[in-house]
Formats: sequence, C-alpha cells, structure tokens
Amino acid sequence: MSDKAVVILSGGLDSTTCMAVAADEGFEIYALTFDYGQRHRREVDCARRVAEHFGAREHRIVQLDLLQHIGGSSLTDSRMEIPSGETGEEIPNTYVPGRNLIFLSLAASFAEVVGARAIFIGVSAVDYSGYPDCRPEFIEAVNRVLRVGTRAGTRSEPIEIRTPLIRLSKAETVKLGHRLGAPYHLTTSCYRGGERACGVCDSCRLRLKGFREAGIIDPIPYEERPADLS
Amino acid sequence: MSDKAVVILSGGLDSTTCMAVAADEGFEIYALTFDYGQRHRREVDCARRVAEHFGAREHRIVQLDLLQHIGGSSLTDSRMEIPSGETGEEIPNTYVPGRNLIFLSLAASFAEVVGARAIFIGVSAVDYSGYPDCRPEFIEAVNRVLRVGTRAGTRSEPIEIRTPLIRLSKAETVKLGHRLGAPYHLTTSCYRGGERACGVCDSCRLRLKGFREAGIIDPIPYEERPADLS
Repeated sequence: MSDKAVVILSGGLDSTTCMAVAADEGFEIYALTFDYGQRHRREVDCARRVAEHFGAREHRIVQLDLLQHIGGSSLTDSRMEIPSGETGEEIPNTYVPGRNLIFLSLAASFAEVVGARAIFIGVSAVDYSGYPDCRPEFIEAVNRVLRVGTRAGTRSEPIEIRTPLIRLSKAETVKLGHRLGAPYHLTTSCYRGGERACGVCDSCRLRLKGFREAGIIDPIPYEERPADLS
Repeated sequence: MSDKAVVILSGGLDSTTCMAVAADEGFEIYALTFDYGQRHRREVDCARRVAEHFGAREHRIVQLDLLQHIGGSSLTDSRMEIPSGETGEEIPNTYVPGRNLIFLSLAASFAEVVGARAIFIGVSAVDYSGYPDCRPEFIEAVNRVLRVGTRAGTRSEPIEIRTPLIRLSKAETVKLGHRLGAPYHLTTSCYRGGERACGVCDSCRLRLKGFREAGIIDPIPYEERPADLS
C-alpha cells in the first residue's frame, strides 16, 4: 500500500510542481485547497483540474472566510491595491498574515485524520517575495510543532512537512516540473484572476521570468507579456 | 495606550480565567471564539457574555467548518460516543486533531492584523486530559514558529503565546479566577451542551473536582452531581 501525502494545492505553478513530485515518489495523494476569498479565485478551478489530472484519492476544498474577515492583505481586502513591478526588500502587502501556518495547521489535521505521513507545500525561499513564512527556519519550526503537538508525533510517527521547492529558483522549479510532466497548461498564477493572466503583477512576472530562464514556453495565455520577459 | 492581547475564548472555565488574567494585567482585549460545530455549542453563547463582561474591544466568532468536515473527534463527529468517567492514560477521542495549532495560527493572524503582542490560551499541562497540544513543549515550539514566521517576528516584535494556566491544576485555576473575579456563573464546560451541564462527562467531572478541591461552590446548575464530587 502506498504511503499517503497531503498536498496543499493552490492551482498555481509551485503547488502543481509539488504534486508532480509527490506523485513521482509514489504517494497516494490527498489534495487540499483553501478558498479564502482570494481575488485569484480562478486558481480553485485550476486546482480541481490539477488534482483530477494526478488522480488524487481525495480533494478537499476548504472555505476559509476568516482571512477575509481578518483582512490585512491586498489579496483578500479589496480596499488595498495590488502592487505591480519588481519585488523589493519589504514584505509586500500581498502577504496574508500567518497564511502558511494556518494552511499547514489545517493540513496537519487532515493528515492526522487520513493517516498521511507527509504534507507537501510548494514554498520557496529563493523567489519567496519576502514572505517570512516561506523560509526553511519556519518550516523546521513547524515540523518541531508537529513532532510535539500531534497524536501521530507522540506515537513517534510524526507528520513531516516536505518542501521540494524550498531551495529552487522559479526557473529550477519550472525545469523540475517540466521533467516530471507537470500539467502547467492547467495552472494559473495571476493575482488578478482575470480570464487571461495579466502578465504584469508580481506573481505573473515571477512566473514568466522562471519560464524564460528555464528556456521553456509557458503554455498559458497572457493579456500582455512585458517586453523584458517575452 | 494599553497593550493589546488576543484571548482565545471558548466560554468555559479555563479561557474565562485566562481572560480575567489578561484583564488584570491591563491588556486591551480582542476576544476570539471558534465555532467549529462542537456539540457544546452553548459555549459560544457563554463566550459572548464573558467577552461583554470584560468589555472586550472586539469579539470575533469564527466559523470553522473544516473540523466538522475533517472529523476524527467525538466532539464534532456525531457517530462517535463521548466517553464518561475517569481520564486515563490514552489520548481520548474528544481530541480534535491539531486543534490548538489551528486555533493559535488563526489567533496569530488576528494578532498580527490588530497589532496585538500577546495571545492568551487557557491550556493546562496538569489536568490536560492527555491532549498532546496542551504541553509546554508544544507552546514553546509554536512561539518559535511565531518568531520566525510572522511579519511581527521579523521586526523583532514577536507575538508571544501566554499560558497562565499551564502549570495550574483545575483547583488552582478556580482559585486564581475566583480571586480575580472571573464571572464563572456565565460559563459552561459540559461536552454535552444541554440546558444544564450534565455533571458526568469528563469535562464536567474535571470542573466539579476543581471547584471541590478549591473549596469554592460552582455557581452553575447541573443535571446531576456525581456522589464523589458533590
């Protein structure tokens, strides 16, 4: 019997690559998608198609209204403006406070219930846009929490968070996914969530830059491809 | 201006005592209650009255359907039986997988948005019913996560989890709350959530035992007070 893994799946490039890694390692996949009122809700539809593509055993789509109620991020608060242009040193306002910890907590609960031993999450500390909860120290700290704070952990069968992309640049991620046959044509990464990806938000720019540097054509359509990335 | 604290408030004995401690220390209180389809939903009404009693600046009541969807605990899964009688060595099936981590993650997000520096949670490692996520090691591990994984943490103003009850027995908790004027008449602890507390579930027994050992009368009405605890 295959080992089970919970894969946090947004429907974007990174989480889809993560799922390709989990599938390649032979895990039985339990996909988990959070619908937290993000503007790029189109991602949820993408997630559905990606989970289906990989034959996930289950796909839970969890409504998380709290992030919307709590606010504080331009991805969930329509009064804030989504930044365009280069990623700087500052933590951008697309940061949802504590988002990855919330996601991992819920994933751990799901993992404990279905008996999964691994949780895959597609964070990267390289092209991480300045989010503090994408760094290895953070993941390591959460792994320690799972060792001491879950029933599985107290039975010496801890649930382990797996981050296959954490040391990869976007280009390396694209190459990895391409090699594993990740269905990038089913994904989207745009923060704006229009019919076609906008091509100019931070997330589109990172993605396009990754494909360009990997020497691979991004199969999804864009409104616009910035001159420096086309 | 007072410092702000998020207080996780169930409407039970422990969280109400916690709120009394936070109020006594002069914090401006942001109450946070999770309505996760627990059978003892009556607690949510109690939480409302307790938050009002303390003049909380805000009281968020967050629907968390996920725990219900994920199942795995007799508190949220109506197909499982709630255990009666003495608490044993085993982790009981009233354990909701990863519950405190989910609660703390969401509290941290709330704290980051309102600018609170402390999160109060009423866990106790003494009468902890065998839950792995009530131990000091667990809280310490989560504090580390908050130091490395939040924006506040990266600015060297970490959000700290405060657990004033962690080394207190139930009797000591009752004495502390009594001294601080905690409104125990507004609380309930019963897992069954009937009109009156049942008096026989694990939670009622722990509470009654605590009051008895503290030499204080529990002000709420019970269906039944077990002979050994009356």
